[in-house]
Amino acid sequence: MPRRVDQKQWIRRQAAVLWAAKGYHATGVQELCDVTGLGKGALYYHIETKQKLLYEISLANLETTIAEAQLIVASDSDATTRLRRLCQHLIRNIAECRPEWTVFAQEINTLRGHYRTEVMDQRARYEQIWSRLIQEGADNAEFREVDRVTVMGILGMHNWTYLWVRPDGSMSADEIANRFCDLILRGLGAEQLEAGAAAEASVGSNDG
Amino acid sequence: MPRRVDQKQWIRRQAAVLWAAKGYHATGVQELCDVTGLGKGALYYHIETKQKLLYEISLANLETTIAEAQLIVASDSDATTRLRRLCQHLIRNIAECRPEWTVFAQEINTLRGHYRTEVMDQRARYEQIWSRLIQEGADNAEFREVDRVTVMGILGMHNWTYLWVRPDGSMSADEIANRFCDLILRGLGAEQLEAGAAAEASVGSNDG
Repeated sequence: MPRRVDQKQWIRRQAAVLWAAKGYHATGVQELCDVTGLGKGALYYHIETKQKLLYEISLANLETTIAEAQLIVASDSDATTRLRRLCQHLIRNIAECRPEWTVFAQEINTLRGHYRTEVMDQRARYEQIWSRLIQEGADNAEFREVDRVTVMGILGMHNWTYLWVRPDGSMSADEIANRFCDLILRGLGAEQLEAGAAAEASVGSNDG
Repeated sequence: MPRRVDQKQWIRRQAAVLWAAKGYHATGVQELCDVTGLGKGALYYHIETKQKLLYEISLANLETTIAEAQLIVASDSDATTRLRRLCQHLIRNIAECRPEWTVFAQEINTLRGHYRTEVMDQRARYEQIWSRLIQEGADNAEFREVDRVTVMGILGMHNWTYLWVRPDGSMSADEIANRFCDLILRGLGAEQLEAGAAAEASVGSNDG
């Protein structure tokens, strides 16, 4: 087991893998002790409660995704290129952190009280990043004007991939994102759809 | 409680509502007795096992959806109109059967053995209906050629709405579907996007 600062992060990953496979409620704390090699006392020292661990898995995942997405949208490329990078980033993230996304998607109704509120707030913040970029593209006349439901549809298209995307799948995360983008960008009325744009965007997701 | 043939269907609905709100594993059989007003003996007479009830909720929902979708695609309208109807049908269905779709989406990994295989097979059958219609549209030169990943993205866009669509929401299921279709049909390169097509398609989903 890793030591010090990353130990909590490591426990979160073990719990996410376990819960993604078997479900939060179906899994006892003893199983979490077994996969982490920790006794109950040591485990509770780190996680405090099972519910808090569930909250932290979703929150940490969303916070990282949001921070990286903010770097992508802050770059000075056109909206079309940044949207393609945002799509690639999300699909890569879901493929690489599939247990965390599975727990987020399947246990979202399990969270209660302020844990639920905070996770929903972060989800809304992430949606806003997409909304603003798409609105920016409309303001620049790169895209047609669309409403929130369309943005939610675009995001849902990505989110649902947690059920089938794999980091080692026959099609890479970037290829999947590019297929999605070909549909979305055409759907938004973007004209810059030549292969060059896709190739340029796939070089890196965070560089300006 | 309803009698005779629809009693099993009614139990499925009560279980779906309960599990959608609280999760399959978090809910004991006693809670199912409470909401149905049945004793354990009578309940087990109808459901056999909890796992079988979960399987039947997802299976019945998918089978109805598939049967209705087959009527839509069998009509003699163009692929653009039929795709719009298929989108409307799915969003309406998710809005009206939200508990069943929630259970399907969130408990899909809970199903085991042949129950899981059969539900996954039905899910694949439903995806094929969409794939074939989109391919037909490409063969007719209504749409551009797309691959399976694009079809999975289009379906995922719809499926994810189980988290937010409501039968009495501020935007109707048909309006949501039309927004999605505006993106998808443009994304597929369909040219027939005038308001008339949307209005015509929204009159009814099953008429040819």
